[in-house]
Amino acid sequence: MSDVKKGKVWAIATGPGSSDLITVRAARQLGELDVLYAPAGRKGGDSLALSIVREFLPPTLNIKERHFPMSADQGEKNAAWDAVAQEMQTDAEQGLQVGFITLGDAMLFSTWVFLLERLRGHVDIEIIPGVTSFACIAARAQFPLAMEQQSMAVVACTAPEEELEQALLNHECVVMMKVYGRVIQIREMLRRLGLLDHAILMAEASLPNEQCFRHLDEIHEDTKLPYFSTILVNRAS
Amino acid sequence: MSDVKKGKVWAIATGPGSSDLITVRAARQLGELDVLYAPAGRKGGDSLALSIVREFLPPTLNIKERHFPMSADQGEKNAAWDAVAQEMQTDAEQGLQVGFITLGDAMLFSTWVFLLERLRGHVDIEIIPGVTSFACIAARAQFPLAMEQQSMAVVACTAPEEELEQALLNHECVVMMKVYGRVIQIREMLRRLGLLDHAILMAEASLPNEQCFRHLDEIHEDTKLPYFSTILVNRAS
Repeated sequence: MSDVKKGKVWAIATGPGSSDLITVRAARQLGELDVLYAPAGRKGGDSLALSIVREFLPPTLNIKERHFPMSADQGEKNAAWDAVAQEMQTDAEQGLQVGFITLGDAMLFSTWVFLLERLRGHVDIEIIPGVTSFACIAARAQFPLAMEQQSMAVVACTAPEEELEQALLNHECVVMMKVYGRVIQIREMLRRLGLLDHAILMAEASLPNEQCFRHLDEIHEDTKLPYFSTILVNRAS
Repeated sequence: MSDVKKGKVWAIATGPGSSDLITVRAARQLGELDVLYAPAGRKGGDSLALSIVREFLPPTLNIKERHFPMSADQGEKNAAWDAVAQEMQTDAEQGLQVGFITLGDAMLFSTWVFLLERLRGHVDIEIIPGVTSFACIAARAQFPLAMEQQSMAVVACTAPEEELEQALLNHECVVMMKVYGRVIQIREMLRRLGLLDHAILMAEASLPNEQCFRHLDEIHEDTKLPYFSTILVNRAS
């Protein structure tokens, strides 16, 4: 029998933005970590994920900020994920409790899954789920998602337009993520489908700069929308 | 100026099942309530929602368990929701902090929305979002949901079969809720669509009786599945 503490990788979802919207389990586990991997912040500041969890971190924690390129170059992204996964594995093999923080939920539109693919089978892994951005937006705007026998689709606005249109035709509720830069085009699609009065846009839900557009016609060509902007559509509401 | 404390209704999502998967905000707010409305438990015990939050409740809290019929009779359901909404409104008008707990998230397949429709405009309302069952299942099973430009559909297996099939054809990831009693029929649909090797079933995720079927052929006609069973399908994984 060995006395060496067994290392483990913890993927910890931070939820949508406000620090108190992380789970109790996440808050407790953050306090037990030896090392925390976090996406690098811009311009030297904390990343959003790191700022969300900051108050729960032990003072001795070793924080390793790592850059994840948003590049279109798949080789560059693969190299970055390979390197971070290898570092995390090495830390866990030395008996450390190794955290990785990820915005929203850990398994939906999350960089964590690329690390999971690399780490699975090599180290012990536990994933702590989180509140998705759209659950938070629905709560803040008091805008229901699907009910009873209805269905909901969650799409990225970077997907082809015909796929977005199919989702809007086939589901009572559609969550449109990654609106950034495409809001005018999406708005015209919603107008054409008769759904404009059934849509809202929310940015930075639960954060101090939260913005809610109850009608998308309030948005102008020169309205600067934050990166985290999401449209919710519910044809039944 | 009045010194009377302003009453408010708080809808508090309990998350998927384990007590520490509620949010920090929910845990704190539960400690500040004067009254808590909860779905009535079966056979005199706590409901699942009440058992999840029990440890966060102040000893003096007035807990009002109310029965929400699962009846097909819409009039009976409307009468029950009307009555509970009226009670909650009366409590809030007397200056009380009034809670309502709801499993999973508050705005997705949740009874809370029927109360919200009745309370909106009459009392102050705040909704605290929660971790959905499918985020928890994905985390526990290390089974990714949608990534990058992929899309996800969330459907109830009580929906017509052709709608379920459409969702399975149109989305990389499909969350099939309310599997109860329909698992054999859904399995045959997945087999026909060539998706059986891309599906898992999990029941009571994060609870002591959690069960995970990595292959749906492990389920037999006489396998007793718990009420909270969900199938995740990901054709990309």
